[in-house]
Amino acid sequence: MLLIGMFDSPFVRRVAISMKLLGFHFEHANWSVGKDFDRIREYNPLGRVPTLVLDSGESLFESAAILDYLDEQASPERALLPRSGKPRRDALQLMATATGAAEKGIVQIYERAFRPAEKIHEPWLDRCRLQVSDALTELDHACQQRAGQQWLVGERMTQADITVSCVVTFLSDALGVDMTAYPSLNEQVARCEALPVFQEIRLAFFTPNKS
Amino acid sequence: MLLIGMFDSPFVRRVAISMKLLGFHFEHANWSVGKDFDRIREYNPLGRVPTLVLDSGESLFESAAILDYLDEQASPERALLPRSGKPRRDALQLMATATGAAEKGIVQIYERAFRPAEKIHEPWLDRCRLQVSDALTELDHACQQRAGQQWLVGERMTQADITVSCVVTFLSDALGVDMTAYPSLNEQVARCEALPVFQEIRLAFFTPNKS
Repeated sequence: MLLIGMFDSPFVRRVAISMKLLGFHFEHANWSVGKDFDRIREYNPLGRVPTLVLDSGESLFESAAILDYLDEQASPERALLPRSGKPRRDALQLMATATGAAEKGIVQIYERAFRPAEKIHEPWLDRCRLQVSDALTELDHACQQRAGQQWLVGERMTQADITVSCVVTFLSDALGVDMTAYPSLNEQVARCEALPVFQEIRLAFFTPNKS
Repeated sequence: MLLIGMFDSPFVRRVAISMKLLGFHFEHANWSVGKDFDRIREYNPLGRVPTLVLDSGESLFESAAILDYLDEQASPERALLPRSGKPRRDALQLMATATGAAEKGIVQIYERAFRPAEKIHEPWLDRCRLQVSDALTELDHACQQRAGQQWLVGERMTQADITVSCVVTFLSDALGVDMTAYPSLNEQVARCEALPVFQEIRLAFFTPNKS
């Protein structure tokens, strides 16, 4: 399998970490949505990452659909998203809060990467910053409620831990979000990021660029 | 249950149509992400729609997570997303292609709704338009391959039909995308949109506005 996309994207990174944890081998195409846009479009009409090219030649995207596929290929006991009930709902809500924040972070990055300075509109960025900070406050609150527990949902690592960690590290790296404002979340993420697989799949943020 | 968000959003609309099809009753808060942003934030830290408030008071978002919850509450035979295997993968890929196009359509609308005219950056909009047209071409191709079949996946309506229909109708209504360029897709969507539930849950596009 070929995984397309740079690990500074939290969406690419959560897929790569999940693949490692589930024991899937893959080659990695370290392509940027900026300068490699046309190359990515050969595999995904939207030109977005992550895109996962299966050995059959079939392309899968977007990250949630890829994760769903990986979980189904793994045995049910190893699947990273809880199968049903309240654990699944809790995990999906933590993930939705995190990915929503990531999307509003990416909007801020694209604002600077894909337009000249005089076209940047600060009130729009302020709206996105508010959305990010409210989402992080919500995640911090969820971590407080899990004080004394190792993982965000249940007794083992789930996709909620992976996704939240990837998103928070991205927001901190790429936008300089001050994580000391969210101490319980910060501590939870630090615990994940200390694990070998999180250290292996890690790339300092690289601003996309068209040239 | 209370469903927050306007039906001109394909993400809100696909949830509302799914709820009707699965037999869930709900109240509807016809709130706009523009002028009702602060009101929505009381239920969802990201201030986004759809947000579904359960009778317990718990809020669920985003649309894929809500649909996952609804399918689990319904009986497995009625669930709108196929449970596993190739039908599930095919449905998720059609949905990812459609929702990716919707997201790039919404970017174009927000560009005009949330910034003054002199801050609009046409090269950025061109990139988004290309992503939308390539995604629609891919969906049109998928519909061609299903010629003679009533539904996009398998022998009954799935979430792929609902999501593709909601997205295409949105792109046509809100951005004036010329659907005659995608004849097989256009025909597939027309068939869905003729159904009573699609006609009932329908709202002409309304540009979000801060005031």
